Amino acid sequence: MGNLYRARIEAIREMMREHGWDAVVLSGSDPHSSEYPAERWKQVEWISGFTGEAGDIVITLDHAGLWTDTRYFIQASRQLFGTGIELHKLRIPEAVPIPEWLAAEDFPSAGETVTIAVDGLCQSVSAIDNISSAFESEGKDVTIISVPDLISGLWKDRPEIPVSPVITLGDEEVGESREKKLIWIRKFLMAKGCDAILLSSLDEIAWLLNVRGSDIEYNPLVISYLLVTMETAEWYVRKYPFTAPDEESKDSFYEIAADGVVIKDYSDLELTLGGMLEIESLERIFVDPSTLNYHVYKLLLDNGLGASVAEGPSPVPLRKSVKNKVEIDGMREAHLEDGIAMEKFLWWLENQLVLGERIDEWDAARKLDSLRAQIPGYRGNSFETISAYGENAALPHYVTPRTGSAILERRGLYLVDSGGQYLFGTTDLTRTIPLGPCSALEKEDYTLVLKGHIDLAKAVFPKGTAGCQIDALARNPLWAAKRNFGHGTGHGVGYFLCVHEGPQDIRQNFNSQPLLPGMITSDEPGIYREGFHGVRHENLLLCREEGTNEFGSWLSFETLTLCHYDTSAIVPGLLSEEEKDWLNAYNERVFRTLSPSLPGEISRWLREKTKNI
Amino acid sequence: MGNLYRARIEAIREMMREHGWDAVVLSGSDPHSSEYPAERWKQVEWISGFTGEAGDIVITLDHAGLWTDTRYFIQASRQLFGTGIELHKLRIPEAVPIPEWLAAEDFPSAGETVTIAVDGLCQSVSAIDNISSAFESEGKDVTIISVPDLISGLWKDRPEIPVSPVITLGDEEVGESREKKLIWIRKFLMAKGCDAILLSSLDEIAWLLNVRGSDIEYNPLVISYLLVTMETAEWYVRKYPFTAPDEESKDSFYEIAADGVVIKDYSDLELTLGGMLEIESLERIFVDPSTLNYHVYKLLLDNGLGASVAEGPSPVPLRKSVKNKVEIDGMREAHLEDGIAMEKFLWWLENQLVLGERIDEWDAARKLDSLRAQIPGYRGNSFETISAYGENAALPHYVTPRTGSAILERRGLYLVDSGGQYLFGTTDLTRTIPLGPCSALEKEDYTLVLKGHIDLAKAVFPKGTAGCQIDALARNPLWAAKRNFGHGTGHGVGYFLCVHEGPQDIRQNFNSQPLLPGMITSDEPGIYREGFHGVRHENLLLCREEGTNEFGSWLSFETLTLCHYDTSAIVPGLLSEEEKDWLNAYNERVFRTLSPSLPGEISRWLREKTKNI
Repeated sequence: MGNLYRARIEAIREMMREHGWDAVVLSGSDPHSSEYPAERWKQVEWISGFTGEAGDIVITLDHAGLWTDTRYFIQASRQLFGTGIELHKLRIPEAVPIPEWLAAEDFPSAGETVTIAVDGLCQSVSAIDNISSAFESEGKDVTIISVPDLISGLWKDRPEIPVSPVITLGDEEVGESREKKLIWIRKFLMAKGCDAILLSSLDEIAWLLNVRGSDIEYNPLVISYLLVTMETAEWYVRKYPFTAPDEESKDSFYEIAADGVVIKDYSDLELTLGGMLEIESLERIFVDPSTLNYHVYKLLLDNGLGASVAEGPSPVPLRKSVKNKVEIDGMREAHLEDGIAMEKFLWWLENQLVLGERIDEWDAARKLDSLRAQIPGYRGNSFETISAYGENAALPHYVTPRTGSAILERRGLYLVDSGGQYLFGTTDLTRTIPLGPCSALEKEDYTLVLKGHIDLAKAVFPKGTAGCQIDALARNPLWAAKRNFGHGTGHGVGYFLCVHEGPQDIRQNFNSQPLLPGMITSDEPGIYREGFHGVRHENLLLCREEGTNEFGSWLSFETLTLCHYDTSAIVPGLLSEEEKDWLNAYNERVFRTLSPSLPGEISRWLREKTKNI
Repeated sequence: MGNLYRARIEAIREMMREHGWDAVVLSGSDPHSSEYPAERWKQVEWISGFTGEAGDIVITLDHAGLWTDTRYFIQASRQLFGTGIELHKLRIPEAVPIPEWLAAEDFPSAGETVTIAVDGLCQSVSAIDNISSAFESEGKDVTIISVPDLISGLWKDRPEIPVSPVITLGDEEVGESREKKLIWIRKFLMAKGCDAILLSSLDEIAWLLNVRGSDIEYNPLVISYLLVTMETAEWYVRKYPFTAPDEESKDSFYEIAADGVVIKDYSDLELTLGGMLEIESLERIFVDPSTLNYHVYKLLLDNGLGASVAEGPSPVPLRKSVKNKVEIDGMREAHLEDGIAMEKFLWWLENQLVLGERIDEWDAARKLDSLRAQIPGYRGNSFETISAYGENAALPHYVTPRTGSAILERRGLYLVDSGGQYLFGTTDLTRTIPLGPCSALEKEDYTLVLKGHIDLAKAVFPKGTAGCQIDALARNPLWAAKRNFGHGTGHGVGYFLCVHEGPQDIRQNFNSQPLLPGMITSDEPGIYREGFHGVRHENLLLCREEGTNEFGSWLSFETLTLCHYDTSAIVPGLLSEEEKDWLNAYNERVFRTLSPSLPGEISRWLREKTKNI
């Protein structure tokens, strides 16, 4: 495969020489800053073969590099083998991000200014700003050329922009109508002295319009832009062409239009921004440079609308992250259903192994899919299931191969990180399951990670606390044994939306966003030993009020996830009494909540599995 | 007293009307951004009667306000009573700092621009920048007028600038000569493209020149400026006039001059900066706007030297914070001696109470002084001793009154927070001592604070970790019981220098400075219940290497402070086994280390006090 990628890079260099570009920067994202881009925008994979969720490529005449973070170091070095592409590591102390790398690079081909070509559709305004700033800091000139769909000429069978049926969610399903959300965002615009906002982030649009689609794998989103003015809302979107007139997609658009949203074609945005389509006169348009793509931003600045541009963080992510009562109830329901599927899966897995059946990682993941698929309202997985046995689990983001995946044996640890999308919520949990005898080190790691997981789950903290201020609670038990993990402890989770969402998180980085009641965040510490094993335990936590006293107002977490923790791999001496109490209470709650919905045999098995330690 | 302060504020308003000023801003600091200013610069106290260590005053024609932080809310509301001065709270979520307050204020007297007078000598460049920025954000014009010694005309008996003998420290006392430190800072200047640095921060100067003085209470500093060029170092300082020619001060200056440092008079700096004194030609002078005063900065900008100004953080604080081997050994020695004094004090205290002697808070503090004073090399206290019994200890920064302080009784908790300056180090510790029976709540608070204190002290954490990332370890046990404290958990401590120094700290604020091996930081959680009691436990921690493994490089703390923790107020069930082990080991170490230097009777008493729990 290495030669294929070498040829593609050479073809890009041909373009560079032809146009006089010194470097080409290509992102792994799409025009909407999506975490999981559709096939059409997997440019980084097409060029390099790297399939990780985060990676950007820089090509110069004599260098090709892939930038990715700790999660993907092992995977990247494997996948880049033979391509001539060098791995540049991010999120390590000596990391040199792309902008700084470019600014420090010597370009013999460049004259007075370095010319960098980007696919402006797939670069955020902020990403381009960062490149410009880095050159400015070095006292160097740079010219950035935006070439939409830069590699389309080379990528002959490049997939089209996807389109899928759209569904709408009613008030009783999401707790707030799109009319109310539009009124809220118009209030925001008034406060900012603006009369329009251009949204391009797909989960923001889906939340605001109460719509969902399936344009992107795992994320129930509709590829579109939304321009909200004080008078109208224009949704630039593709209509799924293969539905009969009376089917859901048609009805959805009808319903949305009835609420005053004007449906326009996705490609019409360029015409609107160019002033070629009729639109009310606008003075000042609000955009979020961290998500808006550079191509559309330039169109705005070119001023076909005659409006100025105000930049700032979109107000949608914060409001979306604080779930309302309907959403919280939906999430509880989703976790109940998901927990039932998980317990059926764990019971099945144990039994298959006892019976001596041949199960590999792929089979196990598909069995879990089939159990989730039986849940009414299931809309697919919320991300690609990580089904990893033994040393494979040492890759935090292992991708289970369809063929030749590892066969599960009756010893050691098997890790499964998975989640479902339901009409009433999104789940994400990880269980590390002892399949038989475990080594002392496996048990220690299993217990220490559980200790960190529990310590965070039972935290009480003052209102105003940000995730980075409690991240150490999950890490401290690991640190005490000089162990650690290279990923964040927790990410926000959407409501039948993206499994990763902001603005809050729980990690070492200084993110000042306080945890607020109603936010849902994961709690997923781990320990990874390359060549040996990996452990991760993950539940979703709902932040909730915990009262006020003379010392202030307090918050705590309600654990949403319902799936027992196997106690057989625990080293009891490593857990404190409080931690054991938490674990016993959690397992008991899992049993009591799920057993009424489980077949007798599985219920009896779960009773055994959840006995106090 | 209220009327006295009202009259002073009125006199300032008279000046304001005369000069057309809309507001006067006066800081509680001195021309060197010192934390503890000399008497001459206690302007805030002169105007308001407020004696806290942090406070700034704003006077407008119809408002007078004092801005201070959580530590001083109770004290400020008491001391401001009757003055007409309003308390503005800082470090609370809804805080409005002075710049933002001024910018939001409506000044009916102002024309197109608001005119604010400041004593530019006692305001840092950054503080003035913040005011300008706040007005800019509001789209308002502001004119800032710098009036050195603005209130000198009103303050008839204003103290002079203090002057005291200077002592020098040799290599064997500080581990690095002033020549080497000058070479180091010149390398910094070269790297920055500068040929001079003007230092005004007194502890930076004392560290760089290896000099100490006693111009300022508690801080062994010499009021001065230091201009280091590539060729020379000019020290602008006052010579203590009352020493015979053969005494230490004369010798000190002789020694410093022999190392090539030119001694100039403190007041000559203005002449130098004005280009009126001969000096080598300078191109670019480096200054730190966070500490340099606005008056001197303006002189520099007025360009009498013909040099441009480069602004950035001074490199001295970080290097000074990382103690070398000689300094670390000195600190260990200081803590040994200090611990002996503390144990003698605690033994004396217990005995006096048993004997029925009448001891008040003031007596106790003076007894402790007298014991420290017996230590060779003692150079006074490192801050004003907090000697607080019962409800007085609920004020984290209680000032013990000379007369009428509370009498200690054989019940409840007595808190003493104190430290010494020694030629070979600086100490700072807090013990909360049960004087007899304690309430259940006192015991609980005592134990929970100890739990937090221990959890931080025994932390292991990866290299690169900043204090704010482990602050939660000290707070988590308190948070679990919905208790908290409103001050930082830890501050840096100098080596025979200021008891508070940067750049590192351990607190909630996002300070990105990682903890480095060699840094010394306090560990002092607390619980304060107004009207009841206060608990704080404080040791100093030395950050040290803890090895490297596959998960990275590790750091931990060595506890420097040697003084036992009284176990009689502990609720044993609230401590984990690990915490008990830490406490028993610590108390045992205190006994073994100190007992050889203690009289037999005290040693036997300490043996009892340090028995395992």
